[in-house]
Formats: sequence, structure tokens, C-alpha cells
Amino acid sequence: MKSLFVIKIGGNVIDNDRELPQFLDNLAALQSAWILVHGGGKLATDLSARLGIETQMIDGRRVTDKATLDVVTMVYGGLVNKRIVAGLQALGINALGLTGADGDLIRARKREHPTTEYGFVGDVERVHAERLGSLLESGFLPVLAPLTHDGQGNMLNTNADTIASEVASALARHYDVQLMYCFEKQGVLRDVSDETSVISRITSALYAELRTSGAIAKGMIPKMDNAFAALKRGVSSVIIAHADSVRLLGEGFSEGTIIVLD
Amino acid sequence: MKSLFVIKIGGNVIDNDRELPQFLDNLAALQSAWILVHGGGKLATDLSARLGIETQMIDGRRVTDKATLDVVTMVYGGLVNKRIVAGLQALGINALGLTGADGDLIRARKREHPTTEYGFVGDVERVHAERLGSLLESGFLPVLAPLTHDGQGNMLNTNADTIASEVASALARHYDVQLMYCFEKQGVLRDVSDETSVISRITSALYAELRTSGAIAKGMIPKMDNAFAALKRGVSSVIIAHADSVRLLGEGFSEGTIIVLD
Repeated sequence: MKSLFVIKIGGNVIDNDRELPQFLDNLAALQSAWILVHGGGKLATDLSARLGIETQMIDGRRVTDKATLDVVTMVYGGLVNKRIVAGLQALGINALGLTGADGDLIRARKREHPTTEYGFVGDVERVHAERLGSLLESGFLPVLAPLTHDGQGNMLNTNADTIASEVASALARHYDVQLMYCFEKQGVLRDVSDETSVISRITSALYAELRTSGAIAKGMIPKMDNAFAALKRGVSSVIIAHADSVRLLGEGFSEGTIIVLD
Repeated sequence: MKSLFVIKIGGNVIDNDRELPQFLDNLAALQSAWILVHGGGKLATDLSARLGIETQMIDGRRVTDKATLDVVTMVYGGLVNKRIVAGLQALGINALGLTGADGDLIRARKREHPTTEYGFVGDVERVHAERLGSLLESGFLPVLAPLTHDGQGNMLNTNADTIASEVASALARHYDVQLMYCFEKQGVLRDVSDETSVISRITSALYAELRTSGAIAKGMIPKMDNAFAALKRGVSSVIIAHADSVRLLGEGFSEGTIIVLD
């Protein structure tokens, strides 16, 4: 099977005028095919503030009323996505910016929660792996914004980590997929205040232990859950590392944290 | 050669909550392949106003400073494009939303003008017809926002009428292309205050005459110039008509104004 990297970058890279070009340079140097999934970062919060729309977060998820949905559709699907695509095209990389609505690539269900009204937040129902594959085979490198649709005309706001995990899993039937979560630290840390405490390898057993001890908490929990979900669905390996580490993909990776089932 | 419609809709349809769904229904009913090019309409001006960014127009072109470029990238590339794409997907149409940066589909040069600083406004240099063709052959129906890029990492604001003409012309080597400009009137009118005065057929000679008499003026001039440019480059016919007339495409068209060379 052909090799494919599914790479997720977060807002901290996108918002950084020095780190984003460096990341795109590294990405452009990769020899294998890839799919990039980007978050939105501070820009959506900034635009909401300028428009007088209050930003409400519950468990790290943005509560998305209609006005906020318009903001994230503009910022994620327009500003951020096209900044990345134009930047990659300037490096000679044939990037193609997409949301889950485009080509019906990622369909989601509006989240129903017994007590919390998340608004226009979507939980992924299915990824159209064949169409993403067809774009890859035509030489396009997809850049996915963290937006899906419900098939009834509504865009939905969907967590970028989840999209990366779902896309990687769906394509694992067709490609040898490695999933990489890029973030601002060197890897998963045993002690969050010590950048040298990177855990190089996490198994299911160790993850259970680290959750119990509280070493893994907060925002890292859904990321780890997404990683294990992808591994269980056929993704070869999941790496959590600093965005700079993307340069090492495909060359025998040696930085950050690798997640394996056991 | 296969038949292809390149259809441009303007802001008046996009901004209208009744007309847009009607237009998308008509589009979804077409049997031939098509490429849709949309304008932006009032939404960009509205967002600029809410953000305290002044909108300046010169000869119907929006002067695009950096802040305005971000606004049009968000509104055209994000909000409007995804509203149309999600609406079409809800009708079972495999729409794919794109800007000129995506897949390097439309590259432009930043406009240099001896006396006017238009800012980030792009004049089309080339359309990647093969890649648009490859998307069509893969079953995607492209929905193009009026945005291009300069190949150096910058998005550029480009007139939607011009994009429609350039795309139609570039694809005329591969398809039998009909170009349709949809707008709010029934066709080109001999008397703008009389909706029944539609001119059914305009040749180069009649156009010269109508310009001299002043019957065709203002915003209609660049539209007509784009129409004739497309005809000279191999497009089979150009139609200027009300958005409702899109339902008649491919059935022996009988509404609006048809433009022919002679």
C-alpha cells in the first residue's frame, strides 16, 4: 500500500508568523502524499470579539450559535485555509483547500447532548475516502478546514483532532497511514512543566496509568482518545510532536511521542 | 465535444434568501456538467462596515487593502462559497468549492495602474483548464469564489464576471462551452426602466451602436466586453439573463439576451 501522512496542525502554529512558513517549508519537502488538517486558533475568537459575539467554550469545544458558525466558516474555511493553500502553492505544492461539505467529503450529525446545547457542532458520521483518494491520485494535496456539513444544507463546526483521526481511519483501508498531531510541545510530557520529560512511547496500558496519575489531563485526553481510536481502525502509527518534527516524517521518526496499541 | 455550462451569479441572488434556494434548485436540475462562479455581494461590504473598514469602489471594482483582502477571502472563499456548496450537496449535487489558489487553478497578477492603487486586485494570467477538467471528469462540480492568487503566497480579489469569462475561454479547447451571466434583470435592456425591452440578440456591430447611443453603459460594459472576449476565444455562446432562466439551459434557450460575434 502507498504511504500517506495525515497531519494536524493547531492554532498555535497557524497564528505564528514565523512558525507557519517554517512548517509549510517542512511540509513541502516531504516525499510522500499527505492530507493536512488545520485548526482555527485565535483568529476566530479575535473576529468574534471584533463583531461583539461572545465566545463560549465547554470542555475545549467552541459553542457554536448561528453567528459563531458564520465566523468559523469565514475564518477556518476562508482566511486560514486559503492562507495555507496560497503559501503551499508558492512552494510549488499542489494544495487544494476543502471543508467537509466540498465533495461531501465529511458528513456529520449535529451534536445532541442531554444537558448542553453545543449549537452547530458536528460529530463525524462518515468520511468519503474514495473521493479523497481520487483527489490524491489526481495529484492534489488536500488541506482540510475543521468544518463538516449535515447533508441538509448546514455547515457544522467539528474539532480538527477528530477530523484528522476520522480521515486517517477512513483512508487506512486504501493507504498505509501515519497520523501526526503537531502541537507546541516536544511531545507528550510526563511533567508538563518540564520540556525534557517527553514520553517516547505510549501503549494502551501506559495511557490508562498516566490518566489515573493525572499526568495526562485536560486537552490531551481527547487527543489521546482520537489517537487510540485511529490505531484501532487500522492507522499504522500516531505521533504527537512539535510542528518542527514534521520534517522527519518518512525518514525513521525520532522525535516526539509515538502512540501504539500495545 | 462534451457540453459544459459556465454560469455566473451575482450578489443580488446570493443575498436573497428566496432567490438563492430557487437558483440552486434550477442548477441541480441541469443535465449537463457546469462550473458555477459566484460574486460576493453585499455581505463583504456589510462585514467591512461591522469591522470599521471603509469600502472604496473605483469603476465597480472594490479597492482591496490588506484588511479588505482578509474580508473578501473570508466572505467569498468561506461564507458564501460554503453556503452554496452545502446547499447544493443537500440537493444531491457533488459541488466542490474552490478559489483560484486551490490547485493553482487561476493565477493572477496584482494590478498595476499608473494612477490608481487598487491594492490586492488580480488580473487573470492563466486558468489551469486541465485540472478543472480533471475535477469535472472525477464527478465534481466546481463552485468558484471570485478569488485568485499570485503564486507568491498572496490571495487576490478578482472580478467574478472576468473569472467566468476566463474559465469559459480556457475550457473551450476541451468542451463545447456556453457562458451564462445571471443577473437581476430579464436580459440586456434597450431602456433600463422598461423590463420588457429585452434585446434578444446582440452582435459586435449592434454592441458598438448601443454603446454609442448610451443604451449600454456603466456595469454592463465590462460584462459585455467579457462576453465578446470569451466568444473570440472559442466559447459557443454567451447569455445574459435573469437567474431564473438557468432552468432553460440545454433545452433550447429562449429567455434573456444572447451575445454572438456577428
